[in-house]
Amino acid sequence: MSKGRLEAFSDGVFAIVITLLILDVRPEGSGLTGWQMFAHDWHKILIFVLSFVMVGVYWISHHHMMHFIAATDRTLLWFNLSLLLVVVFIPYAAALMSASHADATAIRIYGSTLILINLIGAALWWYANLKRRLVHSTMPEWFAGFVLRLQTAPMLIYGLAIALASWQRFVSLALFAVVPAFFILPNPWLEKRISGAREAMLTPEDSIGQG
Amino acid sequence: MSKGRLEAFSDGVFAIVITLLILDVRPEGSGLTGWQMFAHDWHKILIFVLSFVMVGVYWISHHHMMHFIAATDRTLLWFNLSLLLVVVFIPYAAALMSASHADATAIRIYGSTLILINLIGAALWWYANLKRRLVHSTMPEWFAGFVLRLQTAPMLIYGLAIALASWQRFVSLALFAVVPAFFILPNPWLEKRISGAREAMLTPEDSIGQG
Amino acid sequence: MSKGRLEAFSDGVFAIVITLLILDVRPEGSGLTGWQMFAHDWHKILIFVLSFVMVGVYWISHHHMMHFIAATDRTLLWFNLSLLLVVVFIPYAAALMSASHADATAIRIYGSTLILINLIGAALWWYANLKRRLVHSTMPEWFAGFVLRLQTAPMLIYGLAIALASWQRFVSLALFAVVPAFFILPNPWLEKRISGAREAMLTPEDSIGQG
Amino acid sequence: MSKGRLEAFSDGVFAIVITLLILDVRPEGSGLTGWQMFAHDWHKILIFVLSFVMVGVYWISHHHMMHFIAATDRTLLWFNLSLLLVVVFIPYAAALMSASHADATAIRIYGSTLILINLIGAALWWYANLKRRLVHSTMPEWFAGFVLRLQTAPMLIYGLAIALASWQRFVSLALFAVVPAFFILPNPWLEKRISGAREAMLTPEDSIGQG
Repeated sequence: MSKGRLEAFSDGVFAIVITLLILDVRPEGSGLTGWQMFAHDWHKILIFVLSFVMVGVYWISHHHMMHFIAATDRTLLWFNLSLLLVVVFIPYAAALMSASHADATAIRIYGSTLILINLIGAALWWYANLKRRLVHSTMPEWFAGFVLRLQTAPMLIYGLAIALASWQRFVSLALFAVVPAFFILPNPWLEKRISGAREAMLTPEDSIGQG
Repeated sequence: MSKGRLEAFSDGVFAIVITLLILDVRPEGSGLTGWQMFAHDWHKILIFVLSFVMVGVYWISHHHMMHFIAATDRTLLWFNLSLLLVVVFIPYAAALMSASHADATAIRIYGSTLILINLIGAALWWYANLKRRLVHSTMPEWFAGFVLRLQTAPMLIYGLAIALASWQRFVSLALFAVVPAFFILPNPWLEKRISGAREAMLTPEDSIGQG
Repeated sequence: MSKGRLEAFSDGVFAIVITLLILDVRPEGSGLTGWQMFAHDWHKILIFVLSFVMVGVYWISHHHMMHFIAATDRTLLWFNLSLLLVVVFIPYAAALMSASHADATAIRIYGSTLILINLIGAALWWYANLKRRLVHSTMPEWFAGFVLRLQTAPMLIYGLAIALASWQRFVSLALFAVVPAFFILPNPWLEKRISGAREAMLTPEDSIGQG
Repeated sequence: MSKGRLEAFSDGVFAIVITLLILDVRPEGSGLTGWQMFAHDWHKILIFVLSFVMVGVYWISHHHMMHFIAATDRTLLWFNLSLLLVVVFIPYAAALMSASHADATAIRIYGSTLILINLIGAALWWYANLKRRLVHSTMPEWFAGFVLRLQTAPMLIYGLAIALASWQRFVSLALFAVVPAFFILPNPWLEKRISGAREAMLTPEDSIGQG
């Protein structure tokens, strides 16, 4: 299967997952006023926003990896489908957070889901870099390890959130939000490395659209 | 990330959101006739039509902006994801309108959602035009301000709808409908400016398909 | 907006609508066996199959029209969005058929939905052919009228189904199925005309993929 | 209709179906803890994983067939839509498995759904190879029969699962899982043949992406 098709299919799944998240936030209770329903849904909206941003981060991270991957094979394809399987599971994990008002079990399942995605993402990247078989030959060598660290570091944070779930639920939730913040907020350290690797590959057509 | 991929992902999210809107309109009540169920869903259908047209207008407006944007960066990417986050929220705001029979709170939340989308859209455009970094060099200078005004003017109308929500609900709903009407009905004033800017950029391949 | 983007967005909406139809067929009733649930859902499955095929026919018909359209403008864009609006409404009309066990009102609403799609489709085509502004210059002249008749003829059949809804529900349902059968079953009369028009346009790249 | 469009539409439907599967797994029961809800949903998650992998296998198999198909016609188009119709039915079959705790009827309907997909897939491939009309002229001749056997062999396994449904439900479920395992686990026998046929066609652009 061509890399382009793999990316288009993955993008489709990411787009559907990120949109389905809103289906868990629905006004309920006949006879209530709009305000009563909205007040009741408030914590669900927060979980929706957190999960939307999480899926957004995974989508961008998926793209960055795919940018440096030149070829696919059957194993990479199934690594990718496994990754998507767990991404598709996020709406359930988010719904469990909503339904249980983010109790300890729900936080642990949510965190485990995120860890699993990073784990499969790291495995996919590690496999693509085995003897540099599937990555672009112009990709700098140091970049393989850099991405692997970017994929594994959040696992420690999610693990800490899981460990604290029974005692400090709000700290756990804050820890979940730390990872996307790292990727969203201005971050010269991160940008220098990614753009460095991109420039080393000399792919000027990537940042200029088809305008 | 390339502009093409950003657009394809955004289009996917817009297409899913515009279709999910129908999921809020479902016949309910076992033992009722088709007519009784349809009569009961009538006001939901009106809200569906309004919201469908709204998402359609935002989709077209998103495309017009992207047409003049030549390059992306991480900040633009996250402006775009924030825009999509609030677009994905529209089905909830619409469902709240349905469930509360468009009471004052629901109108305020619906209007605030629309204002937020325009606000982020204006910020995205403003950011892309900072020192004209991310827009096409051939885009006429006056066009930057023109689009900014197109993005901000509807906010005043939505704000008026919110202000009137407690007294004149039907005026508020009519005000929501005014904005898409402005973009849908024949509008030489609008078309002259957009086609003027497009011609200045000389992109004849845009209106001729791949037929 | 380019024709390619319009088609991609429309395809996305068609794909989502055709898939969402299954959401109306869900096993219900806790404590029932699989067989009891399946027996109870049987008529819903038939309506799912009918509606799936209907959306499929509209998708193909949309493509055939777009194949001969060379350029778009804002009016065509809104004709297309109106068409999609009513296509997105099909899952509701189908759900109403399911919930009411296809009573007369549900058949009338289902039939009216289909008529509306054909009506907007005919208007879209008529508009594109006004002074042949938006169609390919090599399209044979007789083809404009031929497509217009293809769009309008089913309206008569759907209208008959609506007229018979109170007396002969099963005849109405059979009439709905007649139209897709006309387009699906081998049909030399239809194929000769479509391939004739395509050949006149000399677009060999259309039936040969990128394989 | 071009092959590219057919593939894009099919990919869209596959992506939506594979994501919708999670909608059947939803935490239920107000007042329960996260753990109680998760424990109650556990068997639904297993059915979700099984069905996700099944749809994934069908998606890949669809692509492999399409890779060797060079042209489309109206009949092939409707074979493809029939295939998609049954793929779209998978979420219902999976939901029936969940709701009935995988009773004999549910297993039979699930298995019949899978058999039907393979049957239509085989018919589609057989039709495309009739006098080699629609396949690439460089495709090796032995490959037509090879794919036909790949499409039909799983039917025997699914048939066995159906036959055992009343006595050995867990054996039936294990049999369902055998087929994707055959396609996912390292399989030199399979890979040699597919890559042999691909190489015979000399299409180096397929495994190298646009990176």
